[in-house]
Amino acid sequence: MISARFSHKFFKRINLNKFYSSSVPKFPRRIFSGIQPTGQIHLGNYLGAIAQWVKLQENNEDMILSIVDLHSITLPQDPKTLSKNILEMAATLLACGIDPSKVILFQQSMVPAHTHLSWCLGCICTMPRLAHLPAYKEKSANLKDIPLGLFVYPVLQAADILAYKATHVPVGEDQAQHIQLTQDLARMFNNRFGETFPTPHCIFPGSDFARLRSLRDPAKKMSKSDPDPKSRICLIDPPDEIVKKIKKSVTDFTSEVTYDPENRPGVANLISIHSFVTGKTVSQICDEAKNLNTGQYKLQVADAVVSHVAPIQKKISDLLHNQDFLLQVLESGAEKATEISEATLQEVKDKLGLQFKRKTVHKHKLNL
Amino acid sequence: MISARFSHKFFKRINLNKFYSSSVPKFPRRIFSGIQPTGQIHLGNYLGAIAQWVKLQENNEDMILSIVDLHSITLPQDPKTLSKNILEMAATLLACGIDPSKVILFQQSMVPAHTHLSWCLGCICTMPRLAHLPAYKEKSANLKDIPLGLFVYPVLQAADILAYKATHVPVGEDQAQHIQLTQDLARMFNNRFGETFPTPHCIFPGSDFARLRSLRDPAKKMSKSDPDPKSRICLIDPPDEIVKKIKKSVTDFTSEVTYDPENRPGVANLISIHSFVTGKTVSQICDEAKNLNTGQYKLQVADAVVSHVAPIQKKISDLLHNQDFLLQVLESGAEKATEISEATLQEVKDKLGLQFKRKTVHKHKLNL
Repeated sequence: MISARFSHKFFKRINLNKFYSSSVPKFPRRIFSGIQPTGQIHLGNYLGAIAQWVKLQENNEDMILSIVDLHSITLPQDPKTLSKNILEMAATLLACGIDPSKVILFQQSMVPAHTHLSWCLGCICTMPRLAHLPAYKEKSANLKDIPLGLFVYPVLQAADILAYKATHVPVGEDQAQHIQLTQDLARMFNNRFGETFPTPHCIFPGSDFARLRSLRDPAKKMSKSDPDPKSRICLIDPPDEIVKKIKKSVTDFTSEVTYDPENRPGVANLISIHSFVTGKTVSQICDEAKNLNTGQYKLQVADAVVSHVAPIQKKISDLLHNQDFLLQVLESGAEKATEISEATLQEVKDKLGLQFKRKTVHKHKLNL
Repeated sequence: MISARFSHKFFKRINLNKFYSSSVPKFPRRIFSGIQPTGQIHLGNYLGAIAQWVKLQENNEDMILSIVDLHSITLPQDPKTLSKNILEMAATLLACGIDPSKVILFQQSMVPAHTHLSWCLGCICTMPRLAHLPAYKEKSANLKDIPLGLFVYPVLQAADILAYKATHVPVGEDQAQHIQLTQDLARMFNNRFGETFPTPHCIFPGSDFARLRSLRDPAKKMSKSDPDPKSRICLIDPPDEIVKKIKKSVTDFTSEVTYDPENRPGVANLISIHSFVTGKTVSQICDEAKNLNTGQYKLQVADAVVSHVAPIQKKISDLLHNQDFLLQVLESGAEKATEISEATLQEVKDKLGLQFKRKTVHKHKLNL
């Protein structure tokens, strides 16, 4: 046992100083991430977020994934569309490879601790701190009647993460400011009430695929808020639609296929997509496309994308026909998420002075 | 049966038009009220709020009373003091006559639906609507780092009330603006998502006792935020303290005992207190005090107050020595409150599109 514990491999993996001071980390590594159930998942989300989660899952990370529907309602939603989107998101995540026996996958509104902890954290947060968040400034700039949700959602986001004592959060770079708020709230709570939360760190999924570009304007990222649906490929687009969108994608006036993201972002974007869906390297792809012009190459990319998404689409469709199974997955995930987050909430309430410990347990209930 | 239903007495009690259009009100009369567990209860709270609740309870009203600890933490609290205060508040309410077999008495933070519903209501609320509430303007005027809780607590207050579909809320007049926000949020939700909530109405407990004055300055109301503890009599003040405070209370230079709230507010205040604790009318009291000067009268009032609070103090002390019983009362109340509020929350989530109905129930759980 002991020799195994002190094996060479083990020493290589840890920082010796840290090891001598405390061999077990106070907060074991745990990843939390959330995704809003609004609209269809496009290749940018898939490559930049979902595929990264699948990779983390395959690395046996302790990971918790939430379909954050309480964030979606900070803006007006059609209820029927929203509930359809929640199920579609669950189906999509499963179809893309998320395995609910390996990670906890759940719907945020099914777990009560999120809003409760959000209230507690909100009480140690100030108005100016939230008003200075860049995302708020940006989104509220042209609004007269700013919805309250737009202002307070970063606190809920902090609660989402801290309810699980997550140590790592995979985010896009534009979200880093919010994670900073989470870090601040964790530190403030710890300072006032004793160590309770880890200070979570950002993971920037640093792959080439993190930032797919719009097919219509490679200067912009592929985004579901782009009014032009031809700017993105959705996971559930029919094959002919995918072919059409890629054929019409904006590239440039050079006919060769070369990877130069700065000067030829449109072509580089197609190569990125191609590389992801085939698993081939960029140089392998460029080699193979030496004798093709970009028009011919587009057809190759379209074929590869269609072949890649076909089985995913089939799985999504199968899952959506088995709604009971999806609900069971979400319920089972919510149970596990509730168990962890309630324990955190009890600890928080105890530290705030809201909780009591009974001295004795009465056998009979009061007859009230 | 039918003749009894249409008896003369019955017709006198109801509005005929209303009776013919709908004989059963969509939202049966239900009263909700909350009290913060901060600091000691003084005679002003007792007469103005708690005694009114006891009266409503004795009238067999459907009433829900909450010790709103989540409101208390919007300002910094010492955790040990807060948890002590929660138990003291429960003991005080019981000692004053609140009967948990007749009304639902519970601790807010033990019931998850409050913050959850608050989030949902917050999403249909706007920033300017909250910023214009007079209480917020007043309290935030001299603050630099305004705590978020000070801004958003009226939304939690709305959730407190609407979670029980309460139709009536006994409040001080300074709270009427917040009830208006509750009414607005109820209407907005109903308009968008279908009728869900009643529009709750204020009840102003219109008794003479509603507004006891400060013993040091009859121009101000008796308040727990007054820095001078001699300005108020607390329910748990020792007898000699009560005598001392009443003896030193500010009256005027007329020696007779007459009831003239406008010109002689100090004496009128003592008469109000006296009337409440003895059950005698104001004119009866003035008659009996004809031959006393205010100095002598003060001793009479002090005696009456001491006799009135003595059994209450004894009960509070007994209850605080039986913490397990208090916790059982709170747990039992929380169970009942949870049952009602969860049903409301499920309805809300269903209307927002956050909820699913399973088509079939699987016998076996997934093995995830």
